[in-house]
Amino acid sequence: MDAIEPTVECDVTLDEHPFRLEAGGELPEVTLRCAWYGQPETAPGGVILVCHALTGSARVADWWGGLVGPGRLLDPAHYAIVGINVLGSCYGSTGPTTPDRQRGRPYGARFPLVTIGDMVRAQYLALRQLGILRLTAVIGGSIGGMQALRWATDFPAVLDVCCAIGATPLPAMGLALNHLQRQAILSDPAWQDGDYTTQPVAGLALARAIAMCSYKSAALFDARFGRRPDRSGEDPRKTLTGRYDVAGYLDHQGEKFVRRFDANSYLVLSKAMDTFDLTDADLARIRARIHLVGLSSDWLFPAAGVRALAHRLRAVKVAVQYDEITTDHGHDGFLAEPDAVAPCLRAALTTQPT
Amino acid sequence: MDAIEPTVECDVTLDEHPFRLEAGGELPEVTLRCAWYGQPETAPGGVILVCHALTGSARVADWWGGLVGPGRLLDPAHYAIVGINVLGSCYGSTGPTTPDRQRGRPYGARFPLVTIGDMVRAQYLALRQLGILRLTAVIGGSIGGMQALRWATDFPAVLDVCCAIGATPLPAMGLALNHLQRQAILSDPAWQDGDYTTQPVAGLALARAIAMCSYKSAALFDARFGRRPDRSGEDPRKTLTGRYDVAGYLDHQGEKFVRRFDANSYLVLSKAMDTFDLTDADLARIRARIHLVGLSSDWLFPAAGVRALAHRLRAVKVAVQYDEITTDHGHDGFLAEPDAVAPCLRAALTTQPT
Repeated sequence: MDAIEPTVECDVTLDEHPFRLEAGGELPEVTLRCAWYGQPETAPGGVILVCHALTGSARVADWWGGLVGPGRLLDPAHYAIVGINVLGSCYGSTGPTTPDRQRGRPYGARFPLVTIGDMVRAQYLALRQLGILRLTAVIGGSIGGMQALRWATDFPAVLDVCCAIGATPLPAMGLALNHLQRQAILSDPAWQDGDYTTQPVAGLALARAIAMCSYKSAALFDARFGRRPDRSGEDPRKTLTGRYDVAGYLDHQGEKFVRRFDANSYLVLSKAMDTFDLTDADLARIRARIHLVGLSSDWLFPAAGVRALAHRLRAVKVAVQYDEITTDHGHDGFLAEPDAVAPCLRAALTTQPT
Repeated sequence: MDAIEPTVECDVTLDEHPFRLEAGGELPEVTLRCAWYGQPETAPGGVILVCHALTGSARVADWWGGLVGPGRLLDPAHYAIVGINVLGSCYGSTGPTTPDRQRGRPYGARFPLVTIGDMVRAQYLALRQLGILRLTAVIGGSIGGMQALRWATDFPAVLDVCCAIGATPLPAMGLALNHLQRQAILSDPAWQDGDYTTQPVAGLALARAIAMCSYKSAALFDARFGRRPDRSGEDPRKTLTGRYDVAGYLDHQGEKFVRRFDANSYLVLSKAMDTFDLTDADLARIRARIHLVGLSSDWLFPAAGVRALAHRLRAVKVAVQYDEITTDHGHDGFLAEPDAVAPCLRAALTTQPT
């Protein structure tokens, strides 16, 4: 299934100068890359913001092609779908690879800490500048789901529906794994305190590989790789570096990732994932209908934690529905199982408040 | 509960010169460090070999103090308990830190690949030289359990009972995590192709921290650390390197580990863990009674895999009992829950064949 092209892609430079950040820093200027599928002025279903995960982009159909396109659930003939690359990313929005005008070279490690709240506020300002004052829904998985929840807590009057898949404040194991991923990058001498000209290849690839283990399930790895030797033919029993197939897969994922994602962006976004949290006071501000989806084999955001968040929302009288997708794909189920995600999204978009 | 001291510690240099290894290499000389608790000549219950896990030592009571000692299940007044540091380790047996006589300096990365089978055969030869021709039981958890199972397949006439806790051939997720741990070490420039004079601190600490995540359960991390900031007082929301408590814990574990364990030994033993496998022909050779124990929250060796191994053993007519310990301690449950392990070991040592 080929991904459809956006109707239009645009960069929005925010009117707010400087853009002040929750952790105390500021950016003199913020630009966000947006990708539209459909026409916001005429779409009968209104505008839906789809928030991407850690290393995704504004081009929603590129990573959610099974859900976005003609005849699919998010049909640009019915809804105007917008994706916005998050603040801090390296896919068109202001981030560590953006030139810092004061220094004439990329921010690198001088890029300030951003939060999910900062990302969402920037998105709100960008959409407002584009004349979008109402959203039918904000939807996302993983840190895309964090953004959807932050939209619901921080801009309660703007959206009707919030759908978050595999997303809660990160539990301790997730904080642990994110920390180790950052350590892998920071301890690579090629990181050069963030002022690298070529990427810290070993550290970034290792970070990605650690992350991949937390995105997939043990059952999926067993089914896909088992204890088979690497498909290249090397014998894991004969040399220290001879690999099993799962190891070759992880190395390959790491190598691919280094070519497409910036190490400093990874640090900033991984940190934003860590610091996302929801107090009861946050939850009590919500006016949108909330639809939470857990993934049965998710190790990073266990389904039990998503269910617990639904209970917390009910306790503060927020209209919430919880669905659980049974999948062996682990956390990646929100990307790998569009046919299972679609009914949850459909319910989120059509169910009336309870 | 203070650990008891061994009755005697001794180094046994094997009569076999050179010692030939399964993967094709050889060692001109192999010495194994042994620790005895009790008297093998007079112990009414006979000799029990307790095999240590990845980074353990021959001094069994140091890491299994709740099970080994006067009045405890493995009472040196009843059994003669022996621990043998595995081939490739850095706690007294021949390993990468041992001087290579041909080169006059430690083997380092030139140390050949060893298997669990090599470790066990060396143990068998060492015990035979000490006059021990029969074992009441071989017991171990994790790669200690792998050794116990290898004893049962490779020296079927020597032991009456084999008890393996949280041990199977490593599933794909475990192979993945071991690979990433070795990558962390190999990609640390301080590793120096294995010829370091000071340890590759960053890589080895990261390897240990990745391993710790797989030894513990997510539930335990939630209960122990949650989303609390590091106890040092640093604020994880204010700086990139500001840590949550679980991150501080992992860093501390890494730092402690670098002071006590050799990186090249870690590589060799981690690889031996990978290559351990059991064919049906292996299983069919077993004559000992087998007692397998699964740990309910074990992520590295899931209980379902231990149960599946019990089914495979039954299918080839081996006498096997399977017990499952309900614990939040994950794989580390075999160390952290001596009161739950004791009844399983007691049953293994007393149950008659079925």
